[in-house]
Amino acid sequence: MILTVISAWRSLLAVAGLSLTVEGLYYLIRYLKRFRERRPPQVLFFPAPVTCVRPLLLSSPGHCNCSRSHRESALSCLTRLLLSARRSLDVCVFTISSVELSSSVLAVHGRGVRVRVITDSDYMALAGSQVGAFRRAGIEVRHDQDANYMHHKFAVIDGLILITGSLNWSAQGIFGNKENVIIIKSTDVVKEFIEEFERLWNEYDPSNYSFSPKS
Amino acid sequence: MILTVISAWRSLLAVAGLSLTVEGLYYLIRYLKRFRERRPPQVLFFPAPVTCVRPLLLSSPGHCNCSRSHRESALSCLTRLLLSARRSLDVCVFTISSVELSSSVLAVHGRGVRVRVITDSDYMALAGSQVGAFRRAGIEVRHDQDANYMHHKFAVIDGLILITGSLNWSAQGIFGNKENVIIIKSTDVVKEFIEEFERLWNEYDPSNYSFSPKS
Repeated sequence: MILTVISAWRSLLAVAGLSLTVEGLYYLIRYLKRFRERRPPQVLFFPAPVTCVRPLLLSSPGHCNCSRSHRESALSCLTRLLLSARRSLDVCVFTISSVELSSSVLAVHGRGVRVRVITDSDYMALAGSQVGAFRRAGIEVRHDQDANYMHHKFAVIDGLILITGSLNWSAQGIFGNKENVIIIKSTDVVKEFIEEFERLWNEYDPSNYSFSPKS
Repeated sequence: MILTVISAWRSLLAVAGLSLTVEGLYYLIRYLKRFRERRPPQVLFFPAPVTCVRPLLLSSPGHCNCSRSHRESALSCLTRLLLSARRSLDVCVFTISSVELSSSVLAVHGRGVRVRVITDSDYMALAGSQVGAFRRAGIEVRHDQDANYMHHKFAVIDGLILITGSLNWSAQGIFGNKENVIIIKSTDVVKEFIEEFERLWNEYDPSNYSFSPKS
């Protein structure tokens, strides 16, 4: 009798143990999956050392003999990230005058990736702005049309990676100012920025522009 | 003999099952802990609707009869967050002229919380800057001393919560511009911003200021 009870108890324990194990493994796999997705954002601080990123922009591996340093920097990290776009590149920045970053955007566009740019109407007209070069290359650029600023400084790569922060995409921003950039892969956050981009892209549709007083 | 083998097998299974269960539970607890810490950052988009946050700033629960709306907004969220500081509030912003946000900083300081402010030397002198009010209240403010900008727009609350983004802490930033703010609790990211704050706090120590040409 006692032996039977012990035997039954052992069987019950084995079944319970195994089912809990399966459950544990399920959560472990889920944990690892979400943990990977939710790994902490990467942070870049500026000013970056003045480095040359020209070799990164060449269509085939090459090198540059200029006197600037060619080592890794916050700028080369940002350049590599932009150049990694394969399907889409949505740029939503207050100002874009950095030769390095605008060259990256143009290179991505040149590879046939869909590039869209939203910027600020006041700053796009300043000397050094690369908006003209973008338009000449066939990149669609849209902008606000009021006195307030389109002050975002973010980009979304392939709908998967968000670059955002305080950094204006200018030489002063990159090489002079104290700035930060955060690179986020969390789908929840990226989704919110994609929605913001689409909202502004529609709001700034040229058909809505009304610079001239309505008759 | 067979019964003994079955019995031994069952015991082995039970022990293996239980040990795996303990392991599974360990990972589950770890998962829940890190998952909570690594939950996706919260995002606020601006411009915020023009709301009144005065009731939040009162030392005891109160209300306000002004004509502005008192509902929740991106501004009230930001205000609540700043007011939640219990041990420390480190503010590192390009410009601070928003009455709502500077009142929150002053209220936190008034409760005896250690408040430190880093800002930009050019913009702290502009009309509307609240740096003078901070200093009169006894808050230590440090700033850069070169032609480039201290262009960060972040704050760290209690060494645990990071507020960062494109938002200048001004009325135009909050109520006019297209802006974003991200609230991050990931210890890795918060740590990097704390280090940047301490780096700048030391760099901008008044004993290092050299506005006058050296003799």
